[in-house]
Amino acid sequence: MTAIERYLEENYDRFLAELFEFLSIPSVSAAPEHNADTRRCAEWLAAHINGIGIKAETHETAGHPIVYGEWNGAGADAPTVLFYGHYDVQPVDPLDLWTNPPFGPVIRDGNIYARGATDDKGQVFLHIKALEAHLKTTGSLPVNVKLLIEGEEEVGSNNLERFIAENTDTLLCDCVLISDTPIFAPGIPSLVYGLRGLCYMEVTVTGPNRDLHSGAFGGAVENPINALCAMIARLKDAYGRITIPGFYDDVRLLSPEEQAEFARLPFSQQNYNSGLNIPAEFGEFGYTTNERVWARPTLDVNGIYGGYTGEGAKTVLPSKASAKISMRLVPDQDNSDIARKFERYFRSIAPPTVTVNVTELHGANPVITPRESRGMNAATQALEYAYGKKPFHVREGGSIPVCLLFDTILHAPTVLMGFGLSDENAHSPDEHFLLDNFKKGMTATAMFYKLV
Amino acid sequence: MTAIERYLEENYDRFLAELFEFLSIPSVSAAPEHNADTRRCAEWLAAHINGIGIKAETHETAGHPIVYGEWNGAGADAPTVLFYGHYDVQPVDPLDLWTNPPFGPVIRDGNIYARGATDDKGQVFLHIKALEAHLKTTGSLPVNVKLLIEGEEEVGSNNLERFIAENTDTLLCDCVLISDTPIFAPGIPSLVYGLRGLCYMEVTVTGPNRDLHSGAFGGAVENPINALCAMIARLKDAYGRITIPGFYDDVRLLSPEEQAEFARLPFSQQNYNSGLNIPAEFGEFGYTTNERVWARPTLDVNGIYGGYTGEGAKTVLPSKASAKISMRLVPDQDNSDIARKFERYFRSIAPPTVTVNVTELHGANPVITPRESRGMNAATQALEYAYGKKPFHVREGGSIPVCLLFDTILHAPTVLMGFGLSDENAHSPDEHFLLDNFKKGMTATAMFYKLV
Repeated sequence: MTAIERYLEENYDRFLAELFEFLSIPSVSAAPEHNADTRRCAEWLAAHINGIGIKAETHETAGHPIVYGEWNGAGADAPTVLFYGHYDVQPVDPLDLWTNPPFGPVIRDGNIYARGATDDKGQVFLHIKALEAHLKTTGSLPVNVKLLIEGEEEVGSNNLERFIAENTDTLLCDCVLISDTPIFAPGIPSLVYGLRGLCYMEVTVTGPNRDLHSGAFGGAVENPINALCAMIARLKDAYGRITIPGFYDDVRLLSPEEQAEFARLPFSQQNYNSGLNIPAEFGEFGYTTNERVWARPTLDVNGIYGGYTGEGAKTVLPSKASAKISMRLVPDQDNSDIARKFERYFRSIAPPTVTVNVTELHGANPVITPRESRGMNAATQALEYAYGKKPFHVREGGSIPVCLLFDTILHAPTVLMGFGLSDENAHSPDEHFLLDNFKKGMTATAMFYKLV
Repeated sequence: MTAIERYLEENYDRFLAELFEFLSIPSVSAAPEHNADTRRCAEWLAAHINGIGIKAETHETAGHPIVYGEWNGAGADAPTVLFYGHYDVQPVDPLDLWTNPPFGPVIRDGNIYARGATDDKGQVFLHIKALEAHLKTTGSLPVNVKLLIEGEEEVGSNNLERFIAENTDTLLCDCVLISDTPIFAPGIPSLVYGLRGLCYMEVTVTGPNRDLHSGAFGGAVENPINALCAMIARLKDAYGRITIPGFYDDVRLLSPEEQAEFARLPFSQQNYNSGLNIPAEFGEFGYTTNERVWARPTLDVNGIYGGYTGEGAKTVLPSKASAKISMRLVPDQDNSDIARKFERYFRSIAPPTVTVNVTELHGANPVITPRESRGMNAATQALEYAYGKKPFHVREGGSIPVCLLFDTILHAPTVLMGFGLSDENAHSPDEHFLLDNFKKGMTATAMFYKLV
C-alpha cells in the first residue's frame, strides 16, 4: 500500500480541487429547474471516471441519468465489487441559514462545506480516487469493479429498480459496497451490519356519516378522534412494548456478543437528551438507547389528522379521523406478516360504535448481514488499517431500500462502509464533511479493494 | 283571539307574498359581494316594521346594520318583551344541489323553500305578522315590544354585544323571546329551557426539539402523537365518564320530572342511528340519548393534528402534536372552573418524556331558565293553544351565545319558542320551512304577547 498511499498523499490537493468542481454542480434532483445541472453533473462524473481509466457512461431513465462504469481487468476468477452511490443532492432551503453558498465549497476548521459534501458526493468521490490510486500506481485493480451511481436517491430512487432488473447480468457481483452511512463518531470507525425494516399503515376510523355539530350530538355519538386515540393508546403497554399479538414472534434477540459490543461504544444518555431537548428518554423497558434504535421493533404514529385543525375553535364532531402508523421491524420479522397482524389487532380493538379502514402504504423487510464475511472482513481490516483501531459492528435504525434491491435482485450482500458523521447536516444548511474522514476513507477504500 | 285569528287567516296570502319578497333578498352576511343586498334587506325590514305601526330604524355597526324597533304604547306598568332574531342568512353553496334557486322562493308540499326560510327570516316574519294582527285589529299591543333583529348571526354576532352594551337602557325588558330553535317534531311543540355551555381547550404535546427520522430515533424518543393519544384516551373511562377530578362536582342532576318528560318524547334510537349511519350509539352509561345530549356534560376532540398528514408515507417522528378538545357543560358547571380542572388533570397525566402546553380558546356557561316563569308559562299556553297539545319542555345540546348576552347585560330571562324543524336544512341546500308551523307560529306568537 505504500505506493498507493503516497499517491493519495501527493495528489491530495488536486483531489480537493476536483471535488470542489463536483460539489459546485447543483444536482438537486427534486428541483426541475436544476434538471440541466443534474444532467451536467452525471456527464461530469462519467467523464471523470473515464479519465481515471474506468469505462463509464450515462444511462437514460424516466428521471435523472444513472452513471455506470466497469473495469473487468481482474479476470473472470477474481471477485467483483459493485460500488453504489448517488450524485444527486438535497434541496438547499432555507438558503439564508448557510454560512457560505451551498454550491460554493469552502474549507473551514478541517471540514469541507457544501451541499452534497457528506451525502453523498464526497463519499462517492473518495472511492473514485482510491480506484485511481490503484490504477495509476499499479496499472490495474485487485478486483473487478462496477460503479453504479444514481441521480435520484434523494427523491426515492424511483428508476433504480427497473435499471437493476433490466441489467441484472451486467450488474452481477460478489458484494455491494455503499458509503452513504455515518461512522459512529469521529475517530471511532464502524460498520453497519443490520438495518430495520418498515411496515407503514394508514388507518381511518369513521363515526357518523357526516361532520356533526358537537353541541347537538356530542355525548350521544362516538367521536372518531376520541376512538382513534383510545385505539392508538392500546397499541403499546406500560413497558413500551407493542401489544399486537404475535408481534415479537420472529424478533431475533441480540446475542451477548452484540450487546457487549454496543455497550462498549461511547454513549452519553445525557448528551443525547440535551441534544434533543427532551426531559427524559423513552423506550422499551430493559433495553439501552442503541439497542432500542438498532435492534428492537417500534411503533410510531407518523401523522394524525381529523376534525378542525385551523386557527381558533370550531365545534365539530367529525365524521372521520386518520393516522399514519409505522412499525420499524428487526430481523426476522416480515413486513407482510406484521401488516396482517396489525390490521387484525387494530380491527379487534375498535369499539362497536365505529367502522375502521386499514391500508398498507409501504413495507420493507429488515436487513442483516453476517458480521463475518469476505466483504465484512475486508472492510473491518481496511477500517482498522486507516483509523488505527478496530471498527465497531453496529446497526442502523432506518432502512436503506437499495440494500433490499441488491439482495432480492442481485442476491449480493451489502457492505455499508460509510465515512460520514451523523451531525454533518446531511439534509440541512451548512452540510459538511470532515476532511480527515475523506482522507482516511480513501485509504480504507483502497485497502478494501485489495483485501476483498 | 277570534278577531286576530281571523285577521291572520284573511291576510295569509298577502303575508306569504311579503315573505317571498323578504326571502328574495340575498342577505348573505358572510359574502362581501352581498353587502349591498344585506343592507337592502335591513332597510326593507325596517320599512316593513314601520308599515305595521312600530317605529323602527336601521343602526350602523362595524359590520351589517342592526334593525331596531319599539312600541311602548302599553305603558310603563305593562311588561316589556324584547324579541330577538336575525335577517342575515347562510351562504348557499353548493348551489347545484338546490332544486330551485335559493333566492327564488317556491311552495312545494306544504313547505316554503328558500335560503332563510326557517333560519331565521320565516320565524322573524311570523312575529311581525302576529304583532301586525294585534295592531290592526285592536289598535294596540297587549305589552310593550322591542324588536332587535341583527344581520350578523351567521357570522358570529360580532357587533351585537357592543350594541347591547351601548343601549342597555333602551333594551331593558322583562323577558327575551327568540324563535330560532326547532320544535321537537312536526305536531310536537316544545320549549327549550336549557342550553349547554362550552369549555374549548387546545393542547400541544412536545417531544424532541425538531422533527426526527423515525428510523434513526424511533423507539428511543417519545413520539408526541403517541403520547397525546394516550393522554386523550385517559380523559374518559370505560363507562363514558370524564375522568377529570371534580368534573362532575357541580353537575345538576335531572329531576325525576325532567327525566319523565324527556322519556315521554317520541324517539327511535334505531332511526337516530340509521340517520347517522352509525353501527351503534354511544355515550355515558346509564343515560338515554336525549339525556346525554341535553343534560350531561361531554368531552369531544374537535380536531387533532401532528406529523405528516399528506398523501403517502413519510417516516417522521414529529416534534409536536396538538388537539382541540372541548367540553359541553351543563348547569351548574362553570367554564373557568372546568378549564382549570382540565388543565391541572391534563398536565398530571403527561408522561415525563414530553412537555405540555394548554390554552383556553373559548368558554361559555350553560344556561337554564325556570320551567315555570311568566314568560315560560305564557309560551306554554300559547303553544298549547296553537297546536292543540301541551308543549314538551326540552333542552338543547348546543349553546346560544346571545342568551348569555341577554342574561349578563340585560339580566332578562330568555324564552326559546322556535317553530323550525331540525331537518329543514337550515345551513344546507333546499332550506325550507313547514307552512303549518309558520301559521301555527303566528297564532302562538299572537297569543304569547296577549298572555305574557
